[in-house]
Amino acid sequence: MRIPILKLYECLLVSIQWELDDQTALQFQEDLLHKIHETNARGVVIDITSIDFIDSFIAKVLGDVIEMSKLMGAKVVVTGIRPAVAITLIELGIRLEDVSTALDLEKGLEKLQQELGD
Amino acid sequence: MRIPILKLYECLLVSIQWELDDQTALQFQEDLLHKIHETNARGVVIDITSIDFIDSFIAKVLGDVIEMSKLMGAKVVVTGIRPAVAITLIELGIRLEDVSTALDLEKGLEKLQQELGD
Repeated sequence: MRIPILKLYECLLVSIQWELDDQTALQFQEDLLHKIHETNARGVVIDITSIDFIDSFIAKVLGDVIEMSKLMGAKVVVTGIRPAVAITLIELGIRLEDVSTALDLEKGLEKLQQELGD
Repeated sequence: MRIPILKLYECLLVSIQWELDDQTALQFQEDLLHKIHETNARGVVIDITSIDFIDSFIAKVLGDVIEMSKLMGAKVVVTGIRPAVAITLIELGIRLEDVSTALDLEKGLEKLQQELGD
């Protein structure tokens, strides 16, 4: 299984709607970085509204892919972090530093467009 | 495997990036109709840029889901139909009547917004 990555103007949109297994998460990491390279995307919105629960491996992959995207020059906004996911991330020490967050995909895209407009 | 359906304002966006098997296609049909109901979406963009080849079953499911979405009040735009897919659809007699098409996701979304603005 692979997670589709949608290109919309200068941004990539990803909506993770089901719990990720380890293989899918790693595949997603690779796919996203390739897609950033291929499309010259300046921003990425990752929506995880549907994720109720996150384990330490997935949390690390998520943290890593955000750092990697930034290295490649793309701003990342993570949207729809649920309470349980927020708790897990902090408890695992994954700080998602300098990552913008927003309530939902629409607000995330608006935030990204504002930041890219600067 | 299920295909993520993204909600962006009044529209739903779907990007089918890998060949569908029959089960996934049927699941997608059901998921899309539920999502239209749940979100009151007025439009749907289905991007099939990555689909190189379509068989008769998938073509029928695609034709059906477009008709069903219209019955539920959502306009559908299909984007990124490749030559081989266009040939298959016409040869199978699936006309996708009254369905707007566009080159890519961005143009599809613009077309949908124009149509919804009427």
